[in-house]
Amino acid sequence: MKKLINKPEDYVDEVLEGMALAHPESFVIGGSTGRMLHRPAPVSGKVGVVSGGGFGHIPVFAGYVGEGLLDACAVGDVFASPDMNPMLEAIQFADTGKGVLCVVGNYGGDRMNFDMACEMAEMEDIACARVIVADDVAAAGPEESHKRRAVAGFVLVTKVAGAAAAAGKSLTEVTELAQRAADNLRSIGVALTSCTVPQAGKPTFQIADDEMEIGMGIHGEPGVRRGKLRPVNDICDEMIDLLLADKPMAQGSRVALLINGLGATPAEELYLVFRRAKARVEAEGARIAFHLVGNYATAMEMAGASISVLHLDDALEELLKAPASNPFWKA
Amino acid sequence: MKKLINKPEDYVDEVLEGMALAHPESFVIGGSTGRMLHRPAPVSGKVGVVSGGGFGHIPVFAGYVGEGLLDACAVGDVFASPDMNPMLEAIQFADTGKGVLCVVGNYGGDRMNFDMACEMAEMEDIACARVIVADDVAAAGPEESHKRRAVAGFVLVTKVAGAAAAAGKSLTEVTELAQRAADNLRSIGVALTSCTVPQAGKPTFQIADDEMEIGMGIHGEPGVRRGKLRPVNDICDEMIDLLLADKPMAQGSRVALLINGLGATPAEELYLVFRRAKARVEAEGARIAFHLVGNYATAMEMAGASISVLHLDDALEELLKAPASNPFWKA
Repeated sequence: MKKLINKPEDYVDEVLEGMALAHPESFVIGGSTGRMLHRPAPVSGKVGVVSGGGFGHIPVFAGYVGEGLLDACAVGDVFASPDMNPMLEAIQFADTGKGVLCVVGNYGGDRMNFDMACEMAEMEDIACARVIVADDVAAAGPEESHKRRAVAGFVLVTKVAGAAAAAGKSLTEVTELAQRAADNLRSIGVALTSCTVPQAGKPTFQIADDEMEIGMGIHGEPGVRRGKLRPVNDICDEMIDLLLADKPMAQGSRVALLINGLGATPAEELYLVFRRAKARVEAEGARIAFHLVGNYATAMEMAGASISVLHLDDALEELLKAPASNPFWKA
Repeated sequence: MKKLINKPEDYVDEVLEGMALAHPESFVIGGSTGRMLHRPAPVSGKVGVVSGGGFGHIPVFAGYVGEGLLDACAVGDVFASPDMNPMLEAIQFADTGKGVLCVVGNYGGDRMNFDMACEMAEMEDIACARVIVADDVAAAGPEESHKRRAVAGFVLVTKVAGAAAAAGKSLTEVTELAQRAADNLRSIGVALTSCTVPQAGKPTFQIADDEMEIGMGIHGEPGVRRGKLRPVNDICDEMIDLLLADKPMAQGSRVALLINGLGATPAEELYLVFRRAKARVEAEGARIAFHLVGNYATAMEMAGASISVLHLDDALEELLKAPASNPFWKA
């Protein structure tokens, strides 16, 4: 296991400590167990937006605490859902009387624990809403889209929710906009190498030196096809074809495009993915109205990339382009 | 070779194209061979600041073209110096009558070609100055510091030079400030894995699964010690000790700290490096007045990190903190 870490059992807490030390203007460690990251102070007069999930995907999830993004975030162990308690503490922190939206990745533990946390919060008269992000088209067909995992597109839903809340919209409105983003979002990944969970100490899966896996999830969940590595243009074409088959791009429409690195892929290669993806979007007669290229949702040292497409309307475009201030948000 | 690329011989040009397509507000491809990246238009009334170097270190070098940073940059092949011509074209682009500072990494080809480009530019009555960045303490001892390589600290010198130019200072002043930054800068790296030059097709060097190399350069140049991988705190301590041995931190002094990922190292691990480095700086009685944590100077898919320390005075601190606008500059 080649990692720059101390003891595996200290990994999550020490990384959170490093993040909070590096960015105190964005991140404060809170909660009864130190597994809740929040902004320096709750922001009154707006809906709270929170999330939570397993660790090892920085900036997802906790790295998106910040102005115009999340107010607080529960943090689990590596690739493991946080407990209900830090989720409840995140909700309690974020609530200033206008209610709290929970942006939740479509993973069993995250959903179940957020359901419980919301129930508990509602007993304290905190209005709660949930939006589930399930953007990975590789995880299930369109008829079973509720079974899809959350991958990098999560970041775009978070931005929409955070911006809508910062704009002073009601909980109903923020929820509707975030749900609209989630509904119009599709992602697909490709993995070239495995990642290693520190406490496991060995790679999550094996993949040959000349192989890739299209559609692999950000914890190493099986994808749609394993095969020989191909030129990046061909790989992009296969990925974009899968996205288009699931939701076509109308002539004259506009999309947000997120080209995401899984952690170990050089920036150079992400720009090659962007280059091809842009050509493909334009060949559909659509237009990229907003884009990001970089490491936005990772799987530690996994090499690979993902492409997320968010089909836009005026409201979603405006919210994506609204200002946000956070160490990892760069638009 | 596990890379998301097309043909190796098209790699550099296609990546540059992707960067220019993604960030047209910052990057325009220019020069007679397409190997010069420049801002959309020259900015008159200020000193021009340019650089250039081998490819495969994005954001270094060309990724720092932008407002408050570089005006133009010459781009070589992977790990190979650019020709004199794109350097001259970068200087010609950046000059608006107040002269041009070239920020040059201490590599033989880069220095020689920039010397020639400056001579040619001076024949066109463009005043040129050069500042050489040689920050890698692993490359040579203090008595031979002129033999040191440029590594990630290059980014901090570029920021100082770009900000000084944007503030309207003269070529003499910009050069003096950038030189002061270069003189007060020290870096050291650690490599965990090799990188692969696309046209070579195989790793630049071999390193065992349980080994690291302290002091390795960003092209795989030999470091000061190869040994078993250790906990990150111990690795940081060894690196910080080498930096302190070369230039101590005075009690009450302040520094800029750059924790840099070499390309394949997860953000999580960089925060562990930051956490320890911060504790060590403070144990010296010094203070971090400015810091960056992220992938600022890479070696494609090399795993590892570097620590750069810039010893600050008021002027340097102010210039580092001055606004800049660029896809890769996030402070």
